Amino acid sequence: MFDTAVLSRQPRLARRASRMQASEIRELLKVIEQPGVISFAGGIPDPALFPVDAIRRHYGDILSDPALAGRALQYSVSEGDPSLRDWIAGHMRRQGVPCSSDNILITSGSQQALEFVAKLFLSPGDAALVTAPTYLGALQAFSASEPVYRILDHADVEGTLARCRKPDADGHADCKFAYVVPDFANPSGETLDEAARLRVLRMAEELDIVVIEDSPYGALRYGGDPIAPLQALDIRDGRSIDESRVVFCGSFSKVFTPGLRLGWICASRDLVRRFVLIKQASDLNAPAINQMVIARLAGTLFDDQVARAREHYRNKRDAMLDALADHMPAAARWSQPDGGMFVWLTAGSGVDTAALLPRAVEEAGVAFVPGRAFFPNGGGSDAMRLSFSLPDAGQIGSGIARLAEILRRAA
Amino acid sequence: MFDTAVLSRQPRLARRASRMQASEIRELLKVIEQPGVISFAGGIPDPALFPVDAIRRHYGDILSDPALAGRALQYSVSEGDPSLRDWIAGHMRRQGVPCSSDNILITSGSQQALEFVAKLFLSPGDAALVTAPTYLGALQAFSASEPVYRILDHADVEGTLARCRKPDADGHADCKFAYVVPDFANPSGETLDEAARLRVLRMAEELDIVVIEDSPYGALRYGGDPIAPLQALDIRDGRSIDESRVVFCGSFSKVFTPGLRLGWICASRDLVRRFVLIKQASDLNAPAINQMVIARLAGTLFDDQVARAREHYRNKRDAMLDALADHMPAAARWSQPDGGMFVWLTAGSGVDTAALLPRAVEEAGVAFVPGRAFFPNGGGSDAMRLSFSLPDAGQIGSGIARLAEILRRAA
Repeated sequence: MFDTAVLSRQPRLARRASRMQASEIRELLKVIEQPGVISFAGGIPDPALFPVDAIRRHYGDILSDPALAGRALQYSVSEGDPSLRDWIAGHMRRQGVPCSSDNILITSGSQQALEFVAKLFLSPGDAALVTAPTYLGALQAFSASEPVYRILDHADVEGTLARCRKPDADGHADCKFAYVVPDFANPSGETLDEAARLRVLRMAEELDIVVIEDSPYGALRYGGDPIAPLQALDIRDGRSIDESRVVFCGSFSKVFTPGLRLGWICASRDLVRRFVLIKQASDLNAPAINQMVIARLAGTLFDDQVARAREHYRNKRDAMLDALADHMPAAARWSQPDGGMFVWLTAGSGVDTAALLPRAVEEAGVAFVPGRAFFPNGGGSDAMRLSFSLPDAGQIGSGIARLAEILRRAA
Repeated sequence: MFDTAVLSRQPRLARRASRMQASEIRELLKVIEQPGVISFAGGIPDPALFPVDAIRRHYGDILSDPALAGRALQYSVSEGDPSLRDWIAGHMRRQGVPCSSDNILITSGSQQALEFVAKLFLSPGDAALVTAPTYLGALQAFSASEPVYRILDHADVEGTLARCRKPDADGHADCKFAYVVPDFANPSGETLDEAARLRVLRMAEELDIVVIEDSPYGALRYGGDPIAPLQALDIRDGRSIDESRVVFCGSFSKVFTPGLRLGWICASRDLVRRFVLIKQASDLNAPAINQMVIARLAGTLFDDQVARAREHYRNKRDAMLDALADHMPAAARWSQPDGGMFVWLTAGSGVDTAALLPRAVEEAGVAFVPGRAFFPNGGGSDAMRLSFSLPDAGQIGSGIARLAEILRRAA
């Protein structure tokens, strides 16, 4: 009578489970990690830049002080470590966003910030307004809340507004937010100038929606002048951060290390209070010890580390742009990023980059991410994302030469 | 034309946002952290037990080795650190669950495991089968997916099944899983004996649903004989873990430290693969450096640490049970936990414990958690949760004496 039987069939899953897919990029990384392959696919920070000695010293110092160790190893507040929130508030103020630590939530990387945005704003069938291409991780985070996607084109305000307002094949979806990566975007490498940022804010005003400003690469500028965050532009006429429609997502992953998984949300106190409840229900708090280490790093090393990273990655970007100019066939077009880690290349000539990838890896020993993964509603089949963050300048030169040769043969 | 305006009204939030509430416990903790108050409210590990020296040594060793440091500080696989998954698989096998590291996902504490369970199984309006009282953090994690709750009574199989099958005020909800904390439950202190575990499995079989076995306190047994996990019972007739209907959630928070925020899911490979996708979309991966530290702690110190913790907390439990027997009024009833951190006390005599709490803090300098927070569908107003994990034996004795006096006056 009390025997138990195996599940008679597949367990009944949530509806959202049908939308869960492995990141094409992460799956690709497994295939292309072969010796001899020059990979432009990853887009992860160069470990040569990790401030290992300082990190080791901070862990040691914190764990040598009994009071600090007790705090570092205990449960802590969901909002995040007070000293780290203070530093971030100062960092945001230096970028033109008057705010206090009450406007800051610490997240487990900016990926978690995007997941929280979906949880707070999206019910199934709601619409999210995103660019095409857009950051793949954002699509993964949002899709758990089962939205539809509308395409944001900052050069076409009226077309974008029309797409949000008119019923379409999905029926009329309630548009909840616009998501933008304004600085050196992943994957496009594009930076929105101030006029484009103001157009995005104007669209958001027209639709009365929130703007999600995702800026993990903001500090990594290699040329040109900094442009104020949308959050700063939104309140520069004297409004308070608590009246802003912008939710800013930042990260320590690209400047210091992604290994401690720390980022932040800066937003109105009302929204931060709601995000804190989401943090509490999701994983209680980010590890206090890691937050204390990053607070010490940020307080002592931020500017120096940014300067090191800028010089390091600027050289790699220049190597890639030089090699592209030297080798690419005439039909190819590519972005000229002022920062970040990515160049977006459109092959032209009807090349299908997803079909090309296995040949590029096998025949030319070079890898990239096919473009279509970054398009929520289709497109991008002749494009690819090229990251210059990991290979050295010599590898970048020879890898781009090999890639150009493969493209020439495919055309 | 390009001026931007403040949000015209409150941003339109997801429907789930209306269910998000601050944990009563976390809010309470802010109020009762007053000098002189003896708190039975928290239920967090005693920092006196944190293996600080070993943790400091492991961080130092990992960050002194360039290859290990590069891995510790980089993005890593969503499944979790291979050495930690291996250790956990061995730990599960020692508890009667034959499995491999392919059956293990590392989570950011077991809170995140519960949140992932909700994401994988619950669409809005689905039902989750939970005990009353049940763990408050589980209700918070589940509620983001907007379920209804059905009450599981392991002593009443037919009544429980009837509640899951019959339409009620909510209409007919599709029951997706049963959630149980079989060992020294938070908040009840109750342990399910083998017969009760088999009844739960039988109900799950009847309903053809998954069982979520949450066992953060499993190692902290102070008396009686260990009872096999439901996951072991479910497959003991020779079935494979990949055919099990049980999802086991474990944690390092209570044995080592909650500060590194690490727990795990053990389940069929099919479900683990799905949970990995959820991890990827939620926060990519738990910090590699923390996983490597816990893997080294677990590999060298687990049994010693468990023995230390058992002796430490057994003394505190005994102090609380002795004090309750010595001081409580005749109408009060309380659980006799064989482990964990909690005693569940029913005051009797119509006492409203939520109304009593402010008086207990102000007049008697003693704090607890009112019972009704742990009842998803109402109830528990004359009950309270008492944790013995933080105060020392002397504080426990005097605190329980003061609490008994307040109860006597309230009756």
